[in-house]
Amino acid sequence: MESSYRPEEAREVLDQWRLQRRSIGFVPTMGALHAGHLSLIERAKGENDKVVVSIFVNPLQFNDQSDFDNYPSTLEQDRTLLEDAAVDLLFAPTASVMHPMPMNFKVAVGPMAEAYEGYYRPGHFDGVATVVAKLLLIVGASRVYFGEKDIQQCSVVRRMVEEFHFPNRIEVVSTYREEDGLAFSSRNVRLTASSRRVAPLMYQNLQKAAKSIREGQDPSFVINSAIEEVATVAKEANVDFQFDYVDLVDETFGPVAQFSEGLRIVAAWTLDGVRLIDNLSV
Amino acid sequence: MESSYRPEEAREVLDQWRLQRRSIGFVPTMGALHAGHLSLIERAKGENDKVVVSIFVNPLQFNDQSDFDNYPSTLEQDRTLLEDAAVDLLFAPTASVMHPMPMNFKVAVGPMAEAYEGYYRPGHFDGVATVVAKLLLIVGASRVYFGEKDIQQCSVVRRMVEEFHFPNRIEVVSTYREEDGLAFSSRNVRLTASSRRVAPLMYQNLQKAAKSIREGQDPSFVINSAIEEVATVAKEANVDFQFDYVDLVDETFGPVAQFSEGLRIVAAWTLDGVRLIDNLSV
Repeated sequence: MESSYRPEEAREVLDQWRLQRRSIGFVPTMGALHAGHLSLIERAKGENDKVVVSIFVNPLQFNDQSDFDNYPSTLEQDRTLLEDAAVDLLFAPTASVMHPMPMNFKVAVGPMAEAYEGYYRPGHFDGVATVVAKLLLIVGASRVYFGEKDIQQCSVVRRMVEEFHFPNRIEVVSTYREEDGLAFSSRNVRLTASSRRVAPLMYQNLQKAAKSIREGQDPSFVINSAIEEVATVAKEANVDFQFDYVDLVDETFGPVAQFSEGLRIVAAWTLDGVRLIDNLSV
Repeated sequence: MESSYRPEEAREVLDQWRLQRRSIGFVPTMGALHAGHLSLIERAKGENDKVVVSIFVNPLQFNDQSDFDNYPSTLEQDRTLLEDAAVDLLFAPTASVMHPMPMNFKVAVGPMAEAYEGYYRPGHFDGVATVVAKLLLIVGASRVYFGEKDIQQCSVVRRMVEEFHFPNRIEVVSTYREEDGLAFSSRNVRLTASSRRVAPLMYQNLQKAAKSIREGQDPSFVINSAIEEVATVAKEANVDFQFDYVDLVDETFGPVAQFSEGLRIVAAWTLDGVRLIDNLSV
């Protein structure tokens, strides 16, 4: 595996591959790699001649300094995982390379950035859009892979690529889950033993809720019941449970009251201060 | 000359050239082509295997609807000029192709967009940065050519390319002038006969002012004298003269009081309602 830390180093390798007409798959990450990332890499390996992974914990997309400070960093372990996964190039820039100061320019996402994650994490999607734009411009991949767990991010990135006419193809990979249903996330390592036991309940209950909604029950009622059940179990386990939102949305991330095709339930909650998100198709 | 109206059509031609390892020079324009544009095209021809010109009157960068409505449009004449200049590809998209609705995303320029042109034309540089980003993503040229007359635009684009890590090289081409010193501009065709006679005075007087500044005279004093002389002649010719700014700036477009290396005088003024800009090195 080759490694590069500066855009011009990465480009030298990538331009060579392009001249050889190799297709390039790109998996942008913030490191702290887990089985979810590996499933993206595996998909990218299957669809491209070469695979590039970036590791960059993007300060712009953290609205909460302590979340940024506590974001797990495991670069040497990540490197080994990437070697084992036969990744061709690791791009791991520093913050000052990605966002040289003074920083003037940002991608402004507009109204799409205002709901759900955008509402609870002000500035988050502008930060995501800005760093993704920069990474796509540096790597210039044929296909770029994002995990469906961050469904609103997928939707923002897809729309940005469309509106700005990026030549890259965006691929969304299904959420990779533990056996008990908990979605893999770099933040899971910060869960205590007891909050880890509560964590999968949200997805388990929302799956049942989705089934009830499909069967015609009132979405608000079944979603509220699902949340209440998580709250009860958390309380019994002495785990502090808070939730930002659990809601039925359409593909524009507008809330909907009634079941129709293509809806999803999106959820964001914290267990003892660790914020988790998830989503599932209804 | 090939013509394309949609990004995917243009890309088909461009990708072919890239596979043949042809270097591509790109001159983005808003049409109403004149000798200034032709000097950019000539430079691009000299430095690249293939030359692409885009014609797109970008609604986003007009803060004034009547300026947009009155912007000259001469597509058939432009096409002939481009054929004669042996341009290889014309890319002439419609507004709905460039900016599909609803439009969510924009490039936000930040503090750089607030002075001079940015101050007098709110939103102008965000509009410029957004359309230039899209055009660079569609065309993917090796070198992109901008005219020095729009010096602040050149500076915004250069910085955007740097911050976003665009792989394209930005080239700035010296202002092309009439014999009397008036900078070529698409807006010149809207000058009346009498305002056309007054128009070159600003550059002529600012050249003298620049010389006096280099010789140690007070910049404010000599610049004000230059403006007053234009005002006097305009009044005698019955031409309405207004100015937005005439100022000595450094490369960050901060105003400066004293002469040092690398300064420019920037100017924006209107004659009978037609707004002109110019700049010159001191």
